[in-house]
Amino acid sequence: MREVAILGVGQTAVREHWDVSLRQLAVAAGQAALADADVRRVDAIYVGNMTSGNLNEQHHLGALVADHLGQRGVEAVKLEAACGSAGSAMRQGIMAIASGQMEAVLVLGVEKMTETVFPETTSALVTAADADYEGVHGITFVSLNALIMRRYMHEYGYERGDFAPFALNAHANGAKNPHAFFREPITQNIYEKGRVVADPITLFDASPIGDGAAALLLVPAEKAPQAARVVGSAVATDTLAVHDREDMLWLKAAEISARRAYAQAGIGPEAIDLFELHDAFSVMAALSLESCGFADRGQAVRLAQAREIFPDGRVPIATMGGLKARGHPVGATGLYQIAEAVLQLRGDAGPAQIDGVRTAMTQNIGGSGATIATHILRR
Amino acid sequence: MREVAILGVGQTAVREHWDVSLRQLAVAAGQAALADADVRRVDAIYVGNMTSGNLNEQHHLGALVADHLGQRGVEAVKLEAACGSAGSAMRQGIMAIASGQMEAVLVLGVEKMTETVFPETTSALVTAADADYEGVHGITFVSLNALIMRRYMHEYGYERGDFAPFALNAHANGAKNPHAFFREPITQNIYEKGRVVADPITLFDASPIGDGAAALLLVPAEKAPQAARVVGSAVATDTLAVHDREDMLWLKAAEISARRAYAQAGIGPEAIDLFELHDAFSVMAALSLESCGFADRGQAVRLAQAREIFPDGRVPIATMGGLKARGHPVGATGLYQIAEAVLQLRGDAGPAQIDGVRTAMTQNIGGSGATIATHILRR
Repeated sequence: MREVAILGVGQTAVREHWDVSLRQLAVAAGQAALADADVRRVDAIYVGNMTSGNLNEQHHLGALVADHLGQRGVEAVKLEAACGSAGSAMRQGIMAIASGQMEAVLVLGVEKMTETVFPETTSALVTAADADYEGVHGITFVSLNALIMRRYMHEYGYERGDFAPFALNAHANGAKNPHAFFREPITQNIYEKGRVVADPITLFDASPIGDGAAALLLVPAEKAPQAARVVGSAVATDTLAVHDREDMLWLKAAEISARRAYAQAGIGPEAIDLFELHDAFSVMAALSLESCGFADRGQAVRLAQAREIFPDGRVPIATMGGLKARGHPVGATGLYQIAEAVLQLRGDAGPAQIDGVRTAMTQNIGGSGATIATHILRR
Repeated sequence: MREVAILGVGQTAVREHWDVSLRQLAVAAGQAALADADVRRVDAIYVGNMTSGNLNEQHHLGALVADHLGQRGVEAVKLEAACGSAGSAMRQGIMAIASGQMEAVLVLGVEKMTETVFPETTSALVTAADADYEGVHGITFVSLNALIMRRYMHEYGYERGDFAPFALNAHANGAKNPHAFFREPITQNIYEKGRVVADPITLFDASPIGDGAAALLLVPAEKAPQAARVVGSAVATDTLAVHDREDMLWLKAAEISARRAYAQAGIGPEAIDLFELHDAFSVMAALSLESCGFADRGQAVRLAQAREIFPDGRVPIATMGGLKARGHPVGATGLYQIAEAVLQLRGDAGPAQIDGVRTAMTQNIGGSGATIATHILRR
């Protein structure tokens, strides 16, 4: 099988896009990726999205995007794995090119979730969990992660303020990214004054939803030798419900998919120059670092406190804001992560540029860890 | 690339399954397919479904099905293309095996849509159309197809009663299929007494929704030389909105995907022994036959009146009831079609058996024709 390269990148800013519709967001990102790649016609379009059926009264996004992007007739479909939808779309696109069956594939993530009346968005997000055994009890997605954070703090002896570095790093980096939702740095004091959302998760432990779209144009690597290449790609799943996990403080699907990706790339975590992880909540960032081998169990918070997650650290994360500051248009996030990794590899990350990036890792999580898509890119 | 065979088939009956949940339906079909294939572990699961986020408050079906089917950890994702979801899942599964990347893939379609309070299901189904330009005007999916049927009758000079053979054939065949939703034959008189749903569509021109799941276990053909093989597989799209179609009485995506599948198989429509087409509405059956080359424009109704669509005709359709009588659990239908085609090819269709079937075609349509997945199987 042949290698896959990312020839084009497109993204909209993550905002409350009051004047821009779902399809307009998708078209903007898609057109930008096609223009960046200088490609006019694709063989297929894979669209990642989670909530359009609930919040936009629109399913059938594959055909919709193909139609409005001027790619009428092409094969197209939507992939859904909750907040892991875009990472899953990337996986399908890679497989289509690697297999030799397609020559140019557009993978696109889009989500428009802010023009709703509460509690629509909150209840739409619960569908990422187990409806019959978690949702039925009235959990929200934040409260579910709060249970995990509480357990993490208990088992490893942390206090709420210990998680601040994740937010400080994310917001500092978001301030350097014009596409980010939040573009102001914050201080430890601001972090600690954050209101409780679902104890112990406070305002600055939780990522914001938003509207946005990100797209990538994939081609065989031989056609784009200068472009960033995919050297590792894997998706794994875990139990849907948190209470069924073998260990609620271990992301098994992250471990499995990361190991597969490392093996495909012939490397280990020490070779990763930056890690766009899924910091939907600060505790998820910690668990991701541990489950992928960047820190021992319970030590990711210490790693963060030692500033190893900052741009000059050993494993920079959320380098352009992450979910926390760049924002989390849920079904699009996985492709924002990869788009940012590509910009970093190209040296096009502007003020957010991490020096000497050659190998970047991205990880997109669906739900509380039930679907995890890990990719490793190199240039 | 290598050929793909269908080693295992599983399906539940299509019913109002008051006592069976979404996941239980999926597990029943999945376990049946695995047992039929005598395979214990798969490399990936592709799940087709349309409305679970709206009607079951449950997204994330890939991980859910992997978890509850005892396949924890495997790669899994949901594919959605409205009523074309299951055909799209089949396409992804075929690509994964054909590419050499996977050795055993489960493709599964599931839908549970009858335990809702009106108008939830009706509004959920409108999401298959264009929300901003069709849905906003208050169309239902039936009324949208009614516009098409009205135009068809006008352009080709038909009356409502002329469409009866589609329903008569479907119900007669459904009566021979214990998995079918409707299992009684009907007469011309019964057809003509059918109440108007959305003029000119009457009760017997429209397929019933239902609850059900169907699954297939795919392997490389070299591992299962006796099994039914996929000799053609293609997905194409068209404009989402009916009013944007080049010709509202031509399914361009059916034409494109069928031509590609014919070419892959090295045949034409004359070589097809049976056609499990997407008879969501009788007019869709007619347009499918015409767009795939089984009848000239406007002549499919005459073909049906000449009984060529019946079991002893030139192109048997809905051989085990079709959407009309077997039922239409929307996101699962595409895999019911293929499961039935496999049973026919195996000689396992019981009283519904069509004699001498060697080559079967299936076609799954999303929305009013915006996504169409065509498959050709041979044994």
